[in-house]
Amino acid sequence: MSPLFLVQIERLICENYRMTNTLRVGIVGASGYAGGELLRLFSSHPGAEVVRIAGESKAGGTIGSVFPHLRHSLTFEKVSEKPFWTDVDAVFFALPAGQSFDLVRRYRESGVPVFDLGPDYRLKTPELYRKVYGMDHGDPKGLEEAVYGLPEWAGDRLVTAPVVACPGCFPTGALMGLLPFFREELVVEGSAVIDGKSGISGAGRGLSLETHFPEIAEGMAAYKVLEHRHIPEMEQCLAPFGAGEVTFVPHLVPMSRGILSTLYMTLRKSATQEEMESTVDRCYEGSPFVRRVGAPPNPLHVRGTNEVLLHVRTRGRRLVVVTAIDNLVRGAGGQGIQAMNRRFGLPETQGISGPALFP
Amino acid sequence: MSPLFLVQIERLICENYRMTNTLRVGIVGASGYAGGELLRLFSSHPGAEVVRIAGESKAGGTIGSVFPHLRHSLTFEKVSEKPFWTDVDAVFFALPAGQSFDLVRRYRESGVPVFDLGPDYRLKTPELYRKVYGMDHGDPKGLEEAVYGLPEWAGDRLVTAPVVACPGCFPTGALMGLLPFFREELVVEGSAVIDGKSGISGAGRGLSLETHFPEIAEGMAAYKVLEHRHIPEMEQCLAPFGAGEVTFVPHLVPMSRGILSTLYMTLRKSATQEEMESTVDRCYEGSPFVRRVGAPPNPLHVRGTNEVLLHVRTRGRRLVVVTAIDNLVRGAGGQGIQAMNRRFGLPETQGISGPALFP
Amino acid sequence: MSPLFLVQIERLICENYRMTNTLRVGIVGASGYAGGELLRLFSSHPGAEVVRIAGESKAGGTIGSVFPHLRHSLTFEKVSEKPFWTDVDAVFFALPAGQSFDLVRRYRESGVPVFDLGPDYRLKTPELYRKVYGMDHGDPKGLEEAVYGLPEWAGDRLVTAPVVACPGCFPTGALMGLLPFFREELVVEGSAVIDGKSGISGAGRGLSLETHFPEIAEGMAAYKVLEHRHIPEMEQCLAPFGAGEVTFVPHLVPMSRGILSTLYMTLRKSATQEEMESTVDRCYEGSPFVRRVGAPPNPLHVRGTNEVLLHVRTRGRRLVVVTAIDNLVRGAGGQGIQAMNRRFGLPETQGISGPALFP
Amino acid sequence: MSPLFLVQIERLICENYRMTNTLRVGIVGASGYAGGELLRLFSSHPGAEVVRIAGESKAGGTIGSVFPHLRHSLTFEKVSEKPFWTDVDAVFFALPAGQSFDLVRRYRESGVPVFDLGPDYRLKTPELYRKVYGMDHGDPKGLEEAVYGLPEWAGDRLVTAPVVACPGCFPTGALMGLLPFFREELVVEGSAVIDGKSGISGAGRGLSLETHFPEIAEGMAAYKVLEHRHIPEMEQCLAPFGAGEVTFVPHLVPMSRGILSTLYMTLRKSATQEEMESTVDRCYEGSPFVRRVGAPPNPLHVRGTNEVLLHVRTRGRRLVVVTAIDNLVRGAGGQGIQAMNRRFGLPETQGISGPALFP
Repeated sequence: MSPLFLVQIERLICENYRMTNTLRVGIVGASGYAGGELLRLFSSHPGAEVVRIAGESKAGGTIGSVFPHLRHSLTFEKVSEKPFWTDVDAVFFALPAGQSFDLVRRYRESGVPVFDLGPDYRLKTPELYRKVYGMDHGDPKGLEEAVYGLPEWAGDRLVTAPVVACPGCFPTGALMGLLPFFREELVVEGSAVIDGKSGISGAGRGLSLETHFPEIAEGMAAYKVLEHRHIPEMEQCLAPFGAGEVTFVPHLVPMSRGILSTLYMTLRKSATQEEMESTVDRCYEGSPFVRRVGAPPNPLHVRGTNEVLLHVRTRGRRLVVVTAIDNLVRGAGGQGIQAMNRRFGLPETQGISGPALFP
Repeated sequence: MSPLFLVQIERLICENYRMTNTLRVGIVGASGYAGGELLRLFSSHPGAEVVRIAGESKAGGTIGSVFPHLRHSLTFEKVSEKPFWTDVDAVFFALPAGQSFDLVRRYRESGVPVFDLGPDYRLKTPELYRKVYGMDHGDPKGLEEAVYGLPEWAGDRLVTAPVVACPGCFPTGALMGLLPFFREELVVEGSAVIDGKSGISGAGRGLSLETHFPEIAEGMAAYKVLEHRHIPEMEQCLAPFGAGEVTFVPHLVPMSRGILSTLYMTLRKSATQEEMESTVDRCYEGSPFVRRVGAPPNPLHVRGTNEVLLHVRTRGRRLVVVTAIDNLVRGAGGQGIQAMNRRFGLPETQGISGPALFP
Repeated sequence: MSPLFLVQIERLICENYRMTNTLRVGIVGASGYAGGELLRLFSSHPGAEVVRIAGESKAGGTIGSVFPHLRHSLTFEKVSEKPFWTDVDAVFFALPAGQSFDLVRRYRESGVPVFDLGPDYRLKTPELYRKVYGMDHGDPKGLEEAVYGLPEWAGDRLVTAPVVACPGCFPTGALMGLLPFFREELVVEGSAVIDGKSGISGAGRGLSLETHFPEIAEGMAAYKVLEHRHIPEMEQCLAPFGAGEVTFVPHLVPMSRGILSTLYMTLRKSATQEEMESTVDRCYEGSPFVRRVGAPPNPLHVRGTNEVLLHVRTRGRRLVVVTAIDNLVRGAGGQGIQAMNRRFGLPETQGISGPALFP
Repeated sequence: MSPLFLVQIERLICENYRMTNTLRVGIVGASGYAGGELLRLFSSHPGAEVVRIAGESKAGGTIGSVFPHLRHSLTFEKVSEKPFWTDVDAVFFALPAGQSFDLVRRYRESGVPVFDLGPDYRLKTPELYRKVYGMDHGDPKGLEEAVYGLPEWAGDRLVTAPVVACPGCFPTGALMGLLPFFREELVVEGSAVIDGKSGISGAGRGLSLETHFPEIAEGMAAYKVLEHRHIPEMEQCLAPFGAGEVTFVPHLVPMSRGILSTLYMTLRKSATQEEMESTVDRCYEGSPFVRRVGAPPNPLHVRGTNEVLLHVRTRGRRLVVVTAIDNLVRGAGGQGIQAMNRRFGLPETQGISGPALFP
């Protein structure tokens, strides 16, 4: 039995289809790990293609010269020259705080959807932004219209908002585990403790002594104890449910990828293990990327994927939820693509449905 | 611009196509890392589907229970019950030495192509097999008909042979770098030194003190110095070119995946760097998976892929080639799928063309 | 200037002294990582020497054959033959729960001090022991007389008790950070959350899939969420200060050694950073092994030492303490030796004062 | 039996002795990993004490602020101010090529022994130095008088030479395994292949993308293939035995410490395993730091020590020697201290005799 003929037909159809219908995507700030991961994911996305990239320090270089695992020859443009591309259907941003306002506004005004992996559109008010990032917000109108793009929680605005502010990696891991319980008003206000453990890629591709191999490879450390900039972002998302303040300590762990979040909550009243599990199951029923697991999850089991693993344990009024995600996929570009898929009517999992790389 | 309609049409076409034309694949010995990787790769192969699996120690369990990164609910059958499946188009084997003869013979006789990741069909004569593995070969006729499945070197027999004996991981990394130079008779007989460095998954999923995390994580070691069973396999492949004996020392390195092979040869006469590079380029022109790189390669840059990276340096009559592969893909099931694709007239890269996961 | 002559004199004095005055130590259960670490530490302890060892699975073997980093030729005796050595001044035990009762009783009755790294004498009542370990306690009198040997908190009974029950590794890291604040009644009852991160050696030298290199090297995981046997031990130590229940989740992190404990407490009323720091400083003033550090500590910075690093951060009524220890030294034999030193009037730091191995 | 009284007497004798007779040591270039390791080793050396340190980038800082694992409050002076200390008995240098000439000359002329961990005094002629390092040698007389300080091979000049040029880490691992066989004229000229694998600390504490955790942690790579600056150093040491050129490829392996060297030689005529082992045993008989082992060694088994482990395997005319050292001890300051001990008539192993830290 040779399926050769039909396969060839299929290829012709698909290739023809791709040429005429593929979404054209641009990425501003593509030279870091988040950008590289976007490029990796789009390279096997059947419905979209990256046609433009900008990365300040790598301007003039090709994808292949910046990322040794990618072969593409597309060339980096300069971010500082404010690339406003007229030949793209969607733009992803992955820039540090304060650098995206002008460009995002222009894309927004021209009707090109923006998916921002950076922090500029995550906080809801210019006042809070100024407090956290120490500078004025340069696009208050955009901020007002933006949606916080945690896909399972963003609702329909994910499809209509001109700017999707993709959550940071720590907030993603934490909120996915906290929200189901706060939403049902099961948790004591102010009791949430978030112990976050991130792989080193979460610190970016920039060099620092903290991420120099011999300084961290056989040890680990907390950092920015009680002071991390993701705290206001998390509190804001939990505020509608009366969650109060959260306690958050991030850690760097000697693995390249992944975030494990151990979430501690105090329940308003005792609950059974079954009740807590069904709270999660109810909440994420039908979500293609969320999976409750019976054993504590390992981020290695979702490496390279957009999945969220959740594990729940309760005892008396104590509740512990452990979540595992890939910080560079689910905690960055992966859920950006998930949002883009929904925005353009593509299947939600398209291009981000592959299984994890284990071991 | 909404491509929604066309996308939906495409999906319908593709789904319909898959249901009627997908290759049905069985895997005997699917519960180790090589088997898990086959399952991962097939899960996004558009032209093939795993429909049957057997794994002795995991019999009765599902894929999801054995491999925490996979969700599939297919159930393991018993290897010891000699599963002869009549509903498959191709069978992969991943069994230890001496355990596959009976079943392979039956599949072979029934015309179902066999892709064997184990060692039983790699050596060309029953005598050599007995010498290396200390037992009689149970299927000499199959051995005679089998092809050594290093895809770039196997020629057309890869398409016609009833049994494809996929090379071991170390031989793959070594032969891909040695063969171009021996083929052109550039290398002194007996001069090849192969220093192989393997990730720990190369030692399998079985437990041992050597692979217990604290014993290897912050160190490394050679093993089976000058005594590894892959030596005869490599010498056999190099013999047609008068290569003589090879010197091989394998090492375990504290990374999970990947093989880096540093290959030392003495040239018959001095050659320039350019000549050596063009020898490689000529040899692998048009090969979709082989890439010569200007900087020493890192297996991390091909993690999860079927690629082979080659780096060449010469000085006087010394020649050093460094190759990097993923031991579980290119060194196991990946090139098995590559062979299967060619056998069934599918595009050679189908299902194994995704980019590497880096970092 | 040649100090040669005096050096030689010194050596003669020291050698002569050692021969006649060195403490003679026996170790029951010396073949695991904790035992190996005791052997390493004693090998450079100027006032003590290991003269007897027992290790069931390694009986008949030498230290050098069991521990590749040690050269000693002392031979392992059988634990099952209940070695009651009459030629030792002190005995260390490192056995699993329930295996030490008979022998400890005999040593105790003969007046030889016992330093137990195992769990049998840590819990204060036979009832609690039965509840936690599922068996009857075989030496209630010994239990009554034993002291919980957290050296900075044990007081003078450390010097007089016939049995020193050395704390487990997680309790050591947690209690050292929690006790200063509970002692001063600054913390809300029941608010302590202990997020423990252990190197893999904490799981012992026995093989398991969880500690097989490829399963954990590039990821991490929680385990025994809310169910770890160290919880009662910690609650018991905190009970005198009205601490109530603690919430504890241990994790395995891909490093060989070290425990990082992130401790969360709710203060009864707001406190300043300075107040919290001085609470620690007051508490451990003069302790040779405890050091408060201004930046979050890394267990790598105490690798191989008996030190405890503490870092304190407060905000409002939230208090976070991060502690770092070496699980195999401070969390096992190291503080056993510290206790032994005090018991025998040796300098508290003798043999355990070397600096950390970094990087 | 309480040894308390005698212990106290001993302490008094020792303290008094140390105050009056300890060697006073200075270190120029103490802020990198080699310097930090010298500080660690000297901190428990009973016959020597570091009293002066210089480190350009850390000038003004204390040891404790630069090395988180050390507590000492000694302050770094500026290297650029050419610290010529008159209150030291010995000086260690750990500077990059070309920066030590002036100072070494002054110490040399004033009769203070110099132990140089840098490359400036390793090559025997100014011409070779210029060729390898691309600059003129600034102290030819010192070069002439210097001894290449591989302790087991340096002979009595180690005790009398004004400058001891401590070998680099790769040459140490390679030469210790090659020299016994070349000395006995057993090896074919030009046949030595050195495959070196170094922990990342070998690349220093300076930041680079190559040593950024995510770029190397789960992979590995060769570098400077056939071009490393240590090649001439090795060839020079082997030249007296007619060894000819060597082939050397260094690699970076994802561990912090250690060098594993796999050494391949072609024997002039076949030899037995026993003959090759006894060649090693004869050569290093009585050496306190060299140990031949029956199983392939792991650098983890000598972590933190000055030991050299050697493993030998032969087959026909092939000879493979695998050596394991700690790059920061045996490959740097450790053997510098070994040389210093011999220079000052101290026991050769003093301060560097502790066992390895494993796991």
